[in-house]
Amino acid sequence: MNELVQEILQGNRRALARLLTHIENKREGTDETLAALFPHTGHAWVIGVTGAPGTGKSSLVNMLAKAYRSQNKTVGIIAVDPTSPFSGGAILGDRIRMRDLAGDSGVFIRSMAARGSLGGLARATRDAVRALDASGFDIVLVETVGAGQSEVDIVRTAHTTIVVEAPGMGDEVQAIKAGILEIADILIVNKADRPGADNTARSLKTMLEMGHPASRRHLIGPYGRPLEGIAPTSNGSDGNMWIPPVIRTTATEVDGQRNGINELIQVVEKHRQHLADAHLWDVLEQQRIEIELFDRLQGELMNRLMQVVSLEQLSDIVARIQARKLEPQQAVYEILVQQLEKHNT
Amino acid sequence: MNELVQEILQGNRRALARLLTHIENKREGTDETLAALFPHTGHAWVIGVTGAPGTGKSSLVNMLAKAYRSQNKTVGIIAVDPTSPFSGGAILGDRIRMRDLAGDSGVFIRSMAARGSLGGLARATRDAVRALDASGFDIVLVETVGAGQSEVDIVRTAHTTIVVEAPGMGDEVQAIKAGILEIADILIVNKADRPGADNTARSLKTMLEMGHPASRRHLIGPYGRPLEGIAPTSNGSDGNMWIPPVIRTTATEVDGQRNGINELIQVVEKHRQHLADAHLWDVLEQQRIEIELFDRLQGELMNRLMQVVSLEQLSDIVARIQARKLEPQQAVYEILVQQLEKHNT
Repeated sequence: MNELVQEILQGNRRALARLLTHIENKREGTDETLAALFPHTGHAWVIGVTGAPGTGKSSLVNMLAKAYRSQNKTVGIIAVDPTSPFSGGAILGDRIRMRDLAGDSGVFIRSMAARGSLGGLARATRDAVRALDASGFDIVLVETVGAGQSEVDIVRTAHTTIVVEAPGMGDEVQAIKAGILEIADILIVNKADRPGADNTARSLKTMLEMGHPASRRHLIGPYGRPLEGIAPTSNGSDGNMWIPPVIRTTATEVDGQRNGINELIQVVEKHRQHLADAHLWDVLEQQRIEIELFDRLQGELMNRLMQVVSLEQLSDIVARIQARKLEPQQAVYEILVQQLEKHNT
Repeated sequence: MNELVQEILQGNRRALARLLTHIENKREGTDETLAALFPHTGHAWVIGVTGAPGTGKSSLVNMLAKAYRSQNKTVGIIAVDPTSPFSGGAILGDRIRMRDLAGDSGVFIRSMAARGSLGGLARATRDAVRALDASGFDIVLVETVGAGQSEVDIVRTAHTTIVVEAPGMGDEVQAIKAGILEIADILIVNKADRPGADNTARSLKTMLEMGHPASRRHLIGPYGRPLEGIAPTSNGSDGNMWIPPVIRTTATEVDGQRNGINELIQVVEKHRQHLADAHLWDVLEQQRIEIELFDRLQGELMNRLMQVVSLEQLSDIVARIQARKLEPQQAVYEILVQQLEKHNT
């Protein structure tokens, strides 16, 4: 076992930071390090926090971290920005956070930004969560900005998913349309001291009572095929349903007891208990692994293909498609048949 | 050549609608139809319209369609909702739009929703655009809701990308963070009659003057590797830069001449001319084809692998990973090596 692995297992923060940089840079040898850490994972509770820009997610995550710290739990935070492949936003975010939680050795914060790769960020996030898990954190908070498929992919890593809304972010129909509500285990109306909070909370509750998203969650696996043996997570084997609760929070700590954070922490614990009682934990873990396996297989297959197809060949094919002399799907068959022939001779 | 292909090439709308349904349902034989249509594509100008929920994209798209119709151009609209994999939002959207543009045979409208497949929507959209192109539409408008990577993937189909903002959607830093600005050829401040429009327009312009996104656009290909031979689109070969203009629009037609739509249409034409003058058209088309080819290769490789790996084998591997006895990347190697051995015996 290499030194880096040893240090991370002992909770060394510098070693952890180094590994996260290796993950981001896809440095050679990182897979081996992660493989060595893998048997030591599975202990952290992973909480995903997501929602549209402007809902105050970051402040909420900071307050959650503080609250867990006051329970003597160690907290790792991974802030993911899937919408900003190029900007330095992530680094800025780091600094702002640092000011707030600085000096507490029980908290570790790291930002990750997309680097132009499709799907690469979800994988990097998953690896980062695993590194923090192996490093011994009790709680790992994964925060993502934006709304969309990349969001959904990233929160799939989480055991409990919190979706944050705020009053006055456009009308409620838009919130419903945003679709990420459908992945929520817990719904937050943040900035609940602002006008319109009642309306936002009411429309979220109405939607949940209509049973709209809860009954259909977590049924679709990779490539749109239903996952084998996966029941809706909202149905416990005992017939109990998990109806995502709607909780109001305020981001400013006017009164440490009444900003909703403690209630939120209790509900997270309740959700964890629900998954255990309803024997859903294993089912969800299996689903996460299936998705990861598909994702990794896809990446590896493409890597291998790109090692054997020459750039010349690719350029030639692209030129023929551009001239409308070759149809794209035919091009795919042509490339794959050639590789197969090469392989057989 | 089959009958459906003939009918679509003749501009038959029912045949076109049928093909779009086949594309959504991944019906067998659809690839062949698209292959037969492919040589007849490349004539439509494809305009992507994107932005956060609540910015008034749909109204803007409708007004654009009307304006193009008044120039006697035929218009196809594809409204894509990547954030709502399950809800019937797309169908509702169709009906609302129909009311507005109904009865004009020069307009064709179709909504598409994600069906739980990763990346599948971008591909379906691309195929749909191609079907409309082959069917003879002068202008194809692709509208997407939300913000994030799926958005970026979808607008990559477009020749001109319009990003819509609106006043009061959260502070400007959030808008900048949203990252989709970086894909804009034209920026819109919609709802420009509302308070705050000046601020929104000013902060967008400031950002553009800082040269922040324009200089770095379109440089990243699939899998994060820089695309071969691709120069930044903002640099014309003659040294001319395309600085995305900021245009104010109002969604209500209080005064047909002064809602900004005609200005927008002129700027789209200017952008088209810019791409031609700067010889960027071919470069961008090549880039679009490269992305499509990677995407299709990836899908086909996974299809083939899933046909030869048994569900039993997969279940066994997933169980071993879940027990932390097998590491996910090792599992990938194991699966691929077994397939290779099978193939060789």
